[in-house]
Amino acid sequence: MSDFDTPYLIGLDWGTSSLRAYLLGEGGRVLQTRAEPWGILHVPDGNFPRAFATLVGDWRTRWPDLPAIAAGMIGSAQGWQEVPYVECPADAARLVSGLQRIASGDGRFLYLVPGVLDGSPLPNVLRGEETQLFGALQLLPELAAEALLVLPGTHSKWVTVTDSAIRHFATYMTGELFAVLRDHSILGRPAREQDSRASPAAFVRGLDVAREKPVAGSLFSTRSLVLTRRLAVEESLDYLSGLLIGEELRCALDTLGNACPPLVLIGDGVLCQRYREALLHFGVDNVRILEQAGSAGLWRIASDAGLLATTPSVSPRSANYA
Amino acid sequence: MSDFDTPYLIGLDWGTSSLRAYLLGEGGRVLQTRAEPWGILHVPDGNFPRAFATLVGDWRTRWPDLPAIAAGMIGSAQGWQEVPYVECPADAARLVSGLQRIASGDGRFLYLVPGVLDGSPLPNVLRGEETQLFGALQLLPELAAEALLVLPGTHSKWVTVTDSAIRHFATYMTGELFAVLRDHSILGRPAREQDSRASPAAFVRGLDVAREKPVAGSLFSTRSLVLTRRLAVEESLDYLSGLLIGEELRCALDTLGNACPPLVLIGDGVLCQRYREALLHFGVDNVRILEQAGSAGLWRIASDAGLLATTPSVSPRSANYA
Repeated sequence: MSDFDTPYLIGLDWGTSSLRAYLLGEGGRVLQTRAEPWGILHVPDGNFPRAFATLVGDWRTRWPDLPAIAAGMIGSAQGWQEVPYVECPADAARLVSGLQRIASGDGRFLYLVPGVLDGSPLPNVLRGEETQLFGALQLLPELAAEALLVLPGTHSKWVTVTDSAIRHFATYMTGELFAVLRDHSILGRPAREQDSRASPAAFVRGLDVAREKPVAGSLFSTRSLVLTRRLAVEESLDYLSGLLIGEELRCALDTLGNACPPLVLIGDGVLCQRYREALLHFGVDNVRILEQAGSAGLWRIASDAGLLATTPSVSPRSANYA
Repeated sequence: MSDFDTPYLIGLDWGTSSLRAYLLGEGGRVLQTRAEPWGILHVPDGNFPRAFATLVGDWRTRWPDLPAIAAGMIGSAQGWQEVPYVECPADAARLVSGLQRIASGDGRFLYLVPGVLDGSPLPNVLRGEETQLFGALQLLPELAAEALLVLPGTHSKWVTVTDSAIRHFATYMTGELFAVLRDHSILGRPAREQDSRASPAAFVRGLDVAREKPVAGSLFSTRSLVLTRRLAVEESLDYLSGLLIGEELRCALDTLGNACPPLVLIGDGVLCQRYREALLHFGVDNVRILEQAGSAGLWRIASDAGLLATTPSVSPRSANYA
């Protein structure tokens, strides 16, 4: 391992369904990545210290001075230790002020990043996304003045950033709605009984319907169009996806008025691409995609917290290894 | 059995989850009712003739000339025999023209009532409800000129009637959405783990949120309000119910403009009462409830079809029995 590869930080993205670890070098460069399906609800025996030691114990031994930081549901009531939310407007300094240091079971510490609360009358919470958001601001500094950062997924988050702070955000349960309707409702039944076929046209057809008005009155068309042979069963899930993503976009864009700030999609590339196409269909262009912002966010927060050694944290043994 | 009790018609309401039979006398009066949980997907061995014979075979033997008519999913592709939909505008004469006579396996016939298709660009279908609708028009003739008939439930139907015909209708999957979200989504999880408590106030709170704008952006508040301790877990399902019923009402009432025609709720009394309260909250009063319209509808359609004997259909044996 050359000087160029000197590690400065162990970062963990520890969510509901998976655990991912990064060994980060100068400037947050990813030196190594490891992952296990040990989301907080699937940690063997619910033993967080052991899972932590199993995944990164050798890094801890080799570089005993390296700080470790974790973001995500690991800081929820169901996680290792609950970390109180910090409130909007949340800039990096506020996140840092909410960091919680816990004993990691190996004689050292682990820092947990707090989630963020939007305390509007209908409150909103996020945990894990805040780190991706600050990663995005790190990677694309021009967004700090004003941006709309969208993390599509099970619970899509639409986050308004101004002056380097999270001002406000909304949650759309689009991914979960799609999954429960596909797996458990009458809308998904025909498609569950035979193979689906990707149909961009059916997706756009659903978007078109949702662009006009709320889909509460048109959801059932996923079934009635099939019954009347105006939509192929194999295409019905893409139509449903268009309805639901379209509902999300119509509602979210309605709250903006006429001006849409620079919009960046963060997350899985295929899903982000789908949202970019949908946004284009709704008249929003120049949308950028950022597939990976988590490690940059962990780096940014650790850096702002002063956790990073000013001189490289090279363990005696790493020299042997290099 | 006195003359007053002379039967004229066997009527069946044969839906997805249950089978109900009526022995109907003069003017459609219900003389006897029987029911089995033999919805079309739950008929023993899928043997429709045998289920029919088991439920009403003794009536058929005793009054061999009595006509029999059935409405509901029994006429769908998954039923005894598929009966093509008739199209809107659908008056009683059009329903009658679409009646299908099938051999009932006991040497006689059974008439199946067709469903109705609203062939709008986003088509809509109903099967079974058309019979309740004509039952309502039979029981409340003043509705025939213009009315909005609402059948709340798994798939709520909002049906516009003018000049004694079904002009148009819309479907809201409110009941099914509630069930899948309660049973399979994160919104229902906390409540699934402990007892619920009926909370009219939480229901109204959900209605208030839904009245303002589409709930796509507020569904998640069912969880975030609980997380931030602003809503009790035990009340969260009533809040969710308010959001979903409120979404249905806002959307359905939006399509009416300023004038709401006479509105009648048809169906289960408790659910109809819930909808009436919600409608009042949305500024619609004078809403009537009709709990039972199915047998009246079967009578009306059989009567218009000329199936009813002009002289009482008294079997030889009924005299002995009387």
